[in-house]
Amino acid sequence: MRISMDAVVENLQSADKVLILLHQFPDGDTIGSGCALCRALQKSGKRARIACAHNIHNRYNYITTTIEMDDFEPEYIVAVDVADVKLLGDYAAVYGDKIDLCIDHHSSNTDYARLVYVDATASANCEIIYDLLIKMDGDIDYETASALYTGISTDTGCFRFSNTTAHTHTVAAQLMEKGIDCAEINRIMFDAKSRRRIELEREALSSIVFGKSERTALITITNKMIIKIGADEADLEGLTSLPRQVEGVLIGITVRERENNLNKISVRTHAPINAVEFCRHFGGGGHERAAGCEITGSLGTVRKTLLAAAEQTVADAGITGL
Amino acid sequence: MRISMDAVVENLQSADKVLILLHQFPDGDTIGSGCALCRALQKSGKRARIACAHNIHNRYNYITTTIEMDDFEPEYIVAVDVADVKLLGDYAAVYGDKIDLCIDHHSSNTDYARLVYVDATASANCEIIYDLLIKMDGDIDYETASALYTGISTDTGCFRFSNTTAHTHTVAAQLMEKGIDCAEINRIMFDAKSRRRIELEREALSSIVFGKSERTALITITNKMIIKIGADEADLEGLTSLPRQVEGVLIGITVRERENNLNKISVRTHAPINAVEFCRHFGGGGHERAAGCEITGSLGTVRKTLLAAAEQTVADAGITGL
Repeated sequence: MRISMDAVVENLQSADKVLILLHQFPDGDTIGSGCALCRALQKSGKRARIACAHNIHNRYNYITTTIEMDDFEPEYIVAVDVADVKLLGDYAAVYGDKIDLCIDHHSSNTDYARLVYVDATASANCEIIYDLLIKMDGDIDYETASALYTGISTDTGCFRFSNTTAHTHTVAAQLMEKGIDCAEINRIMFDAKSRRRIELEREALSSIVFGKSERTALITITNKMIIKIGADEADLEGLTSLPRQVEGVLIGITVRERENNLNKISVRTHAPINAVEFCRHFGGGGHERAAGCEITGSLGTVRKTLLAAAEQTVADAGITGL
Repeated sequence: MRISMDAVVENLQSADKVLILLHQFPDGDTIGSGCALCRALQKSGKRARIACAHNIHNRYNYITTTIEMDDFEPEYIVAVDVADVKLLGDYAAVYGDKIDLCIDHHSSNTDYARLVYVDATASANCEIIYDLLIKMDGDIDYETASALYTGISTDTGCFRFSNTTAHTHTVAAQLMEKGIDCAEINRIMFDAKSRRRIELEREALSSIVFGKSERTALITITNKMIIKIGADEADLEGLTSLPRQVEGVLIGITVRERENNLNKISVRTHAPINAVEFCRHFGGGGHERAAGCEITGSLGTVRKTLLAAAEQTVADAGITGL
């Protein structure tokens, strides 16, 4: 059932022993959301902890170390920034049908939780958590502000993407009033690239192919590359924005090879191309300019299929080649 | 004489036939400042125009086309975002001693104008122009908002650098309320990479070498690369930030091969390494974290010399390897 923010506040205020679930392959927004909410609940005297199917990279230590470690049998389960129960990864089987509340900003949210609050106009889930914490008690300290800023900054590409709104900047202004070191956070999130990441970018750039119109571009991350480089999930983050950065490209696709011919596809678009519509053809979902799907098949075939579909989408939108 | 913003307002309100000077090699902040002020003056019935010693790149057309072209013998001359009269380039000789008013955000402003308003806490000069226009009549339309946003976004690296303040975000929020397309502006300013640039990044990444401590990194841009790719100056812009982006690297060096064994060196550092001190050993100069020099010699020798010097600098600073 979809509920209002006031109802979210009421539910959280009467809850205790709260388990907060993050999505698999955790990013800044789910980590920031989970830790900010956890810290707020802990500060109000409740027991709370976060859980994630994957390890949280140590570059997020400045966020994760601000909550107290705790362990308990959960009485109330909240999912943050999790659009679909599948995105809980290994925790889907454990908690999938027991989630009391979901707080999310994906329009594609599948309403898997008992109570659901979705605001798809929020650039990041952390923008919602900010509004929520203000409603709950107004106490957003330096640590919470750093966590929330991280989610907003990472999900908007540091205020660059079209999901950024006036409200996003208003929240950022209020978080900065807490004295957070936004330059350092952004350095860690965007500028501190591992050597593996550097190698991966080089390989990704080498793999780029363009559609006939030059309005579409596709990069491939193979298992072989990942093994050769020794790359992990953190090294891969944000690589998907690369093909869309090329001048004139409106659909940028990243094909990531997984096991057993399964490929994870990330699609990034510029206006007027709708990424989530594009991905729906392949059973996926997401946002207007950033969406994803999974396709089974050989790399060659999948690449060909995607580029053809992308070219068709551009043509259907009446956009001519460069 | 330093004056208050109220005095700036009074002076501009009683002025007409206003010539607004931008700094040479114009960037988003001086262009945004000049055009926003010019448009506001024109809308209030005054005659105004902008002038710059260098051509304004056509990627700023969405700003420059929002002011009316005009020509007149100036009665009042304003410089925007110009810290030193030398930065007017060829216009220094023409107007250098006739500037009535300077509006700037550089603490290093040399007070060359008759009246000077400097706010060094402003992330961008456009932040000051925003406050000024609000004081003047409050009418900031879509076009003016786009111009001001551009200056703020480019001077803060899209809200990433440490000059970004809460006020910066507050102004950005108010500009976005005008319905401006910040994603498109940022795409033009930051993301629209030419295919040549993409190739150049790949080559640059392939050329990266690290010092023994892994605290130093060096990339090389050879003449051969530039010719093969057909790259121009615009394609090279900002490439120098690449080696410093690697995790743990404190000195990032870019060697750009020129003619006759001459090499242009760019050095970018993280605290505590001083880039300008490093470059002074080679007869160069610059800022604390970004400096440069020129060295004659074969690429191999120059690279070896620079990496050895960088390693020594790191060791002298008492910093251990990774």
